[in-house]
Amino acid sequence: RIMRPDDANIAGNVHGGTILKMIEEAGAIISTRHCNSQAGEPCVAALARVERTDFLSPVCIGEVANVSAEITYTSRHSVEVQVNVMSENILTGAKKVTNKATLWYVPLSLKNVNKVLEVPPIQYARKEQEDEGKKRYEEQKLDRLETKQRNGDVIFPIINPEPHTVGYSQSSLIHLVGPSDCTLLGFVHGGVTMKLMDEVAGIVAARHCKTNIVTASVDAINFHEKIKKGSVITISGRMTFTSNKSMEIEVFVDADPFVDEPRERYRAVSAFFTYVSLSKEGKPLPVPQLLTETEDEKRRFEEGKGRYLQTKAKRHAQMQQAARQ
Amino acid sequence: RIMRPDDANIAGNVHGGTILKMIEEAGAIISTRHCNSQAGEPCVAALARVERTDFLSPVCIGEVANVSAEITYTSRHSVEVQVNVMSENILTGAKKVTNKATLWYVPLSLKNVNKVLEVPPIQYARKEQEDEGKKRYEEQKLDRLETKQRNGDVIFPIINPEPHTVGYSQSSLIHLVGPSDCTLLGFVHGGVTMKLMDEVAGIVAARHCKTNIVTASVDAINFHEKIKKGSVITISGRMTFTSNKSMEIEVFVDADPFVDEPRERYRAVSAFFTYVSLSKEGKPLPVPQLLTETEDEKRRFEEGKGRYLQTKAKRHAQMQQAARQ
Amino acid sequence: RIMRPDDANIAGNVHGGTILKMIEEAGAIISTRHCNSQAGEPCVAALARVERTDFLSPVCIGEVANVSAEITYTSRHSVEVQVNVMSENILTGAKKVTNKATLWYVPLSLKNVNKVLEVPPIQYARKEQEDEGKKRYEEQKLDRLETKQRNGDVIFPIINPEPHTVGYSQSSLIHLVGPSDCTLLGFVHGGVTMKLMDEVAGIVAARHCKTNIVTASVDAINFHEKIKKGSVITISGRMTFTSNKSMEIEVFVDADPFVDEPRERYRAVSAFFTYVSLSKEGKPLPVPQLLTETEDEKRRFEEGKGRYLQTKAKRHAQMQQAARQ
Repeated sequence: RIMRPDDANIAGNVHGGTILKMIEEAGAIISTRHCNSQAGEPCVAALARVERTDFLSPVCIGEVANVSAEITYTSRHSVEVQVNVMSENILTGAKKVTNKATLWYVPLSLKNVNKVLEVPPIQYARKEQEDEGKKRYEEQKLDRLETKQRNGDVIFPIINPEPHTVGYSQSSLIHLVGPSDCTLLGFVHGGVTMKLMDEVAGIVAARHCKTNIVTASVDAINFHEKIKKGSVITISGRMTFTSNKSMEIEVFVDADPFVDEPRERYRAVSAFFTYVSLSKEGKPLPVPQLLTETEDEKRRFEEGKGRYLQTKAKRHAQMQQAARQ
Repeated sequence: RIMRPDDANIAGNVHGGTILKMIEEAGAIISTRHCNSQAGEPCVAALARVERTDFLSPVCIGEVANVSAEITYTSRHSVEVQVNVMSENILTGAKKVTNKATLWYVPLSLKNVNKVLEVPPIQYARKEQEDEGKKRYEEQKLDRLETKQRNGDVIFPIINPEPHTVGYSQSSLIHLVGPSDCTLLGFVHGGVTMKLMDEVAGIVAARHCKTNIVTASVDAINFHEKIKKGSVITISGRMTFTSNKSMEIEVFVDADPFVDEPRERYRAVSAFFTYVSLSKEGKPLPVPQLLTETEDEKRRFEEGKGRYLQTKAKRHAQMQQAARQ
Repeated sequence: RIMRPDDANIAGNVHGGTILKMIEEAGAIISTRHCNSQAGEPCVAALARVERTDFLSPVCIGEVANVSAEITYTSRHSVEVQVNVMSENILTGAKKVTNKATLWYVPLSLKNVNKVLEVPPIQYARKEQEDEGKKRYEEQKLDRLETKQRNGDVIFPIINPEPHTVGYSQSSLIHLVGPSDCTLLGFVHGGVTMKLMDEVAGIVAARHCKTNIVTASVDAINFHEKIKKGSVITISGRMTFTSNKSMEIEVFVDADPFVDEPRERYRAVSAFFTYVSLSKEGKPLPVPQLLTETEDEKRRFEEGKGRYLQTKAKRHAQMQQAARQ
């Protein structure tokens, strides 16, 4: 679809969250269609996880985003979908790859939302494809368990913080879940949650560096718990790490299903977003260093640095491999 | 994309206006892309006309609408696009054709919005395709001239109207044109206008028959004048004709560009929408007869009857032709 | 326009904020049109104040809201607009008055946003109308000055609050101001701000009483400062008072114009919203008493009680007057 002013920041760059929402909608359509392709209980595919994804080039207002999706692996209870986004300038005809994302969906019964159904297997062109898919499946399963444990953290408010400290830029947003945010099952679309997460992360980044910022990448996101229509969700973000030219922001989503059912607030999702600061000409700008104060902040900074160096090393290895081929 | 609760009426049927907006967006993309396919002045395709289109089957919340577009004819300054909409229930896999629409676009220069550029010609598989396209082109050109003259009418408010009179159900809506309503040129997307027109027509129809109603068809719509960002548009609708099971509503769009330029209010678009009333099971219900009072109302009723009978005759002829083949 | 699912809470009652936004749009259109009715510098009318308004009856999904606006007084630099909202059930034909609101607008030059232009005078049918208008004008001017002073308060976060305390329900929301939120001048529409304020107030009310809630009234709102496109606004709400069946919530709007101009965060608007809790049958429910802890909270509770008793007395006087006539 055509990117509109409302999809973009004031410099005309489309928000990463808008792209993530389109990706998720495409993934939900193809996996719901696949899981209902054989006779049996009707179901809706719910997003369980999005793998780490890089925003390779910014999209601008007036460009057309083309989203294509393909199922690349099925386990007994989950579907792996590969989604590609190409942006096309219809005036010049120029096309660019914007995103390649991998999403995992789980089919939930339309009659009983707590029942996970079986996924019809797909046919692989080559045996290796199945083996590689299985490897990816096992890896993400492990990672999902790990992040579930990390999930208890809470963001405490800070009064009168100094510039460039963690407390200075941390932000939170509340949102009342309306009908248009939800699937047929009455639970929030994963894409809606990601869009709100990107919005908070963007505000944290902008508060820190006070320039025009764009999403550079999103770490793997796990959706631990569903969020019901009518809930109030609180999305909180805090900066965890800065390199010379990037900022890492941790985002939490907490749900308060306060109207219908007497349940405590719970952590539904958490993730890391990486942002860069851009000049008016679209060039990356240096980012002010994050000032860490508490022990926890220093520990999180080091962990962020670890993720940053790991990603850098991986990208280097991929480029070398690509050069050899 | 997936149809959401906000796209639909309270019975769950997606508004015709939502479908029209998607059709127009697809048409605008394909024709803008085509008109920029050769080196030259960059341009944006502006909607000039939509041919009469029938809503063959209702779309429901949760279904996926697949829109495909193809260029079928080019004249020197205009592009004919054929757009098809299929609705797909991704739970059952059932697909239905919802709409087939024909739209005409005109390329306007990005630098000078009053300059119409030339359209690169397309290749036809067979000579007859070009000839048929040319015939359609001539026909719509004639029709466009005709409706331009009809365009001066105004809807006057009526105080304490009787049920089922024209004054009883007539309605109008004003809308302030915002940035997301507009193209890169700063003019309202044709699709946005059509969505608002359908909204007003739907209110007129519901006021008249007080049941659940859906768009059955839209007569050819001509876009005589562009509408600029920041304008206030008034969309007015009045019932012109009722058959046993359908209602015809005439809709006018008037624009007030009152801020930027000291220009008079002008008529930008006008069209006829046909609605039917549906029972809870989705079956057509009888419609109360429209009570005409003034000479003008009686005349418009007769004209509406003429259009109704003509459409019926055409459809009959098509079915006979299809049966012979 | 027709009320859609996203305009309403899960019980189907349309949010007060949606109504406030429509009221403001109507007021902005009529006053902008009036201020541009004579030759001179083009201008846009900016909302300066909304008088206290009661929500007389709830509006539901599927109903049509009819908004009508009329200019009732002009001073040299401001316009008073009276807006009435009627809700109409188009299936039954039943109509109810939903709102009567009075708004004050100020014309700002399109070329220089800091320049307030002169308002063309209107003609009054009777001399008394002008005198009464002048009295209202003087009164609101006084009140605007008063609230400007009250405006410095800040909401501090509380950790692990007890149920029914002020800290337990207080909430805040951040919003990045996008193009669709803004007028042609690039400043946020008053109606957009009011909608967000109502959203926060509603979440505070729902957190406190954990039932379905609706807006009952809004105290006079003064718009002290404009908010620019690209700003981040923080809308915070805290409960100040509860009677047996109503809750008063104070809402603040702070703006952070952090990207373009290096200006400090400032208070743009503040107001009091009154909410009631409704049973599934739409009857008012008793509300849990607010637990006040600090001296400030106790003081604000007493002030809220004062406003509550004053409003009650005024309404009583009006009813007696009406009975005498």
